[in-house]
Amino acid sequence: VRILVVGATGTIGRAVVEALQPRHAVIAVSLQQAAEQVDIGDPGSIRALYQRIGQLDAVVSTAGRAVFKPLSELSDSDFQLSLSNKLMGQVNLVRYGITNVRDGGSFTLTSGILARLPTPGGAAMSLANAGLEGFTRAAALELPRGLRINVVSPGWVAETLQAMGRDPAAGVAAVAVARAYVAALEGKSTGQVIEVLPP
Amino acid sequence: VRILVVGATGTIGRAVVEALQPRHAVIAVSLQQAAEQVDIGDPGSIRALYQRIGQLDAVVSTAGRAVFKPLSELSDSDFQLSLSNKLMGQVNLVRYGITNVRDGGSFTLTSGILARLPTPGGAAMSLANAGLEGFTRAAALELPRGLRINVVSPGWVAETLQAMGRDPAAGVAAVAVARAYVAALEGKSTGQVIEVLPP
Repeated sequence: VRILVVGATGTIGRAVVEALQPRHAVIAVSLQQAAEQVDIGDPGSIRALYQRIGQLDAVVSTAGRAVFKPLSELSDSDFQLSLSNKLMGQVNLVRYGITNVRDGGSFTLTSGILARLPTPGGAAMSLANAGLEGFTRAAALELPRGLRINVVSPGWVAETLQAMGRDPAAGVAAVAVARAYVAALEGKSTGQVIEVLPP
Repeated sequence: VRILVVGATGTIGRAVVEALQPRHAVIAVSLQQAAEQVDIGDPGSIRALYQRIGQLDAVVSTAGRAVFKPLSELSDSDFQLSLSNKLMGQVNLVRYGITNVRDGGSFTLTSGILARLPTPGGAAMSLANAGLEGFTRAAALELPRGLRINVVSPGWVAETLQAMGRDPAAGVAAVAVARAYVAALEGKSTGQVIEVLPP
């Protein structure tokens, strides 16, 4: 099974690659550090990636930038970046990738718990994450040839909290988040928001 | 109480204006047909509206275009229109309007039930509606001076169904939808998604 992992060098992406590699052929993609590169904020870059890569069985995205900043400081361009990158970047990975994914294959995207449980500073991220979840529920009804789509919505990741000097016990380990992607990819569900919260 | 109603000439907007007019000073705004005009897809048009209008007690939006079309036919520009108009148009009505709304005032926006209950053809609308609901939940945590924000999520409107030659009994009457805006505006809730579904 040939799987594209976009965002493969991030905290969650690395854990997803490690979880998938024993059983699948993983093509790791990232903005700069992986062998294959893509800027999901640029539609042309996504189309070029799919042209280079050819047929796949699944696409996993753990990529996408959105701006965390107080509402009063969020600028037009902060919203624009969050919309074009985390939201439409991942939507376009699906739209442009449909013809590359074989019958019965899947897309697994990444939102975040701010979609449902907001926090001050998270207005643009809540918007992008919730929008992506709305798209996922709807697109699942129309994907052709048995293709499936799901979105993993993780809480704060322990490793990220630790890197920020905060208590990692308040987060969920990247290895636990990765299991949600594997379950989405190897299971039969579609149109689902899979939340992964701290224990 | 001075209330701006954006989208005042639409099916829901007219019912909202009728419901509010007996008790409030309503300023009706629409793209073309009302005395005051705004194109919410154009940030400059929104800023100019607020400069003309001055201080308000509440802003209601029943405006916003999003594209209903099969996923395989939705183009980049269909998504762009849905994002810039129904989603960011309403988000910007809030962001740019905060300084115009007096202490304790409110914003009441419009999403739609496709945010939660998708249907084929609704991928861009589900995305825009869900994104707007995510923004609403988050922005409620940060609005200053006791300002509130809520979003009404109506199902199909009976009058719209009738105009399409479909059975209006499958929808909810515009007058019933309008009551949700009045409740949001005159009540104390904030950050809420107020669904109005057929009986």
